[in-house]
Amino acid sequence: MIQSIDRAARILGLLQGARRLGVSDLGAALGLPPSTVHGLVKSLQAHGLVAQEPDGNRYMLGPALLKLSSVYLDTLDVRSRSIRWMHALSQRTGFATRLGVPLLGDVLVIHHDRRPDGSEQMPETGITLPVHASAIGKVLAAYDDDVRGELLARELADLTDHTVTDAASLTSALDDIRAAALAWEIEEAVVGECSVAVPVVDDTGRVIAAVVLVVPADAQPVPDAALRELRDAARGISRELGAATWPPRA
Amino acid sequence: MIQSIDRAARILGLLQGARRLGVSDLGAALGLPPSTVHGLVKSLQAHGLVAQEPDGNRYMLGPALLKLSSVYLDTLDVRSRSIRWMHALSQRTGFATRLGVPLLGDVLVIHHDRRPDGSEQMPETGITLPVHASAIGKVLAAYDDDVRGELLARELADLTDHTVTDAASLTSALDDIRAAALAWEIEEAVVGECSVAVPVVDDTGRVIAAVVLVVPADAQPVPDAALRELRDAARGISRELGAATWPPRA
Repeated sequence: MIQSIDRAARILGLLQGARRLGVSDLGAALGLPPSTVHGLVKSLQAHGLVAQEPDGNRYMLGPALLKLSSVYLDTLDVRSRSIRWMHALSQRTGFATRLGVPLLGDVLVIHHDRRPDGSEQMPETGITLPVHASAIGKVLAAYDDDVRGELLARELADLTDHTVTDAASLTSALDDIRAAALAWEIEEAVVGECSVAVPVVDDTGRVIAAVVLVVPADAQPVPDAALRELRDAARGISRELGAATWPPRA
Repeated sequence: MIQSIDRAARILGLLQGARRLGVSDLGAALGLPPSTVHGLVKSLQAHGLVAQEPDGNRYMLGPALLKLSSVYLDTLDVRSRSIRWMHALSQRTGFATRLGVPLLGDVLVIHHDRRPDGSEQMPETGITLPVHASAIGKVLAAYDDDVRGELLARELADLTDHTVTDAASLTSALDDIRAAALAWEIEEAVVGECSVAVPVVDDTGRVIAAVVLVVPADAQPVPDAALRELRDAARGISRELGAATWPPRA
């Protein structure tokens, strides 16, 4: 690990958490003198990775990150294949859809298609979700040993009265999820919101992502036709990625 | 400038351009031995800023960039204020809308609301547009001396038969844009696509962004009602940001 790159990445991580920080805040968090932090921040700023507050001395994340992330998204074959399927899925079912992949112990939403009712909805691409309290996370943990290992090694947060946090219940749920190739999450992260996810498989047979319907609690039960559309979308995306079979082997 | 951060940022820039590169490609581009590049890339990978191809040796941009950029977007007051206005604008006019800011000589799209016709459309948040051939860029250049300076100092690309590239015509157009507080772009970047943009002003009176209607060439002329909606949206966003007056002083 090159020390100054490690420090620069930790500065980005600190700004990700706190939004706006001064050189002395960053120095305190990193255990470094302000002069060292100043050099790191100015180097990041020269490349647009960090920006200075318009009317202040603190620093924030910079615009070059958005351009980089836009290209990151474009390089993801699974995302480019999914956009069309997910848009059709939202239009047909009336529910918002998300596509998620693992990111360092969380679920990263790499595409989001809004409910087609014309209502105001925040863009969700780029948000992270907890693995244990999201349907996408449960699907990924059910099929991916790394994701499951990280999940079971951690203290899990109680987000609502419905969040499942004990290892035994989670492990047994993961077996059921593989058997069904489908995971539910019932108000486990946000009160009033449920979700149901299915796996997306690549040409090597590996589960690399999951696609989910986001369902308001008062829209339960989800019609069978919507679950069929969800499975058809995941099968269609997986086929386009070169998967020989879907659902994946349990 | 700290040398290894500069090199790391250049690696991200090279991957942004080429999508997938091996250590030797990166070394050739940077004039560095493979062992040095390897250390840089592994340090970036440890933080999720770079990822290795699933079935190969090349490197690509990493998922941590998407999470960082999502937080970058959330820190932008102008974007969070604009989302509601832009969604209403798209719904009422039937046209896609974009919000853009300057980024190192280009226009960076920081929000995009699709045409409300339910058709399949690629997400555009994070793409960059040329300043001289976009309505957003013209508005930003008309009000921001830095953007105008960069624009007039450069060789400008002929993108279509309609692209304006000579400095005298551009400069005179910028005066008209300030007088009207509105800029048109008529198939200057993409054949078949036009756009019309107006400025967004912050609490210091500075033009910090522009909001645009994206108009198919065959939908011209744009109804006056749509232009009124566009102006109302820019005025509404600017007021929420604390601007005392709109349009900005010419």
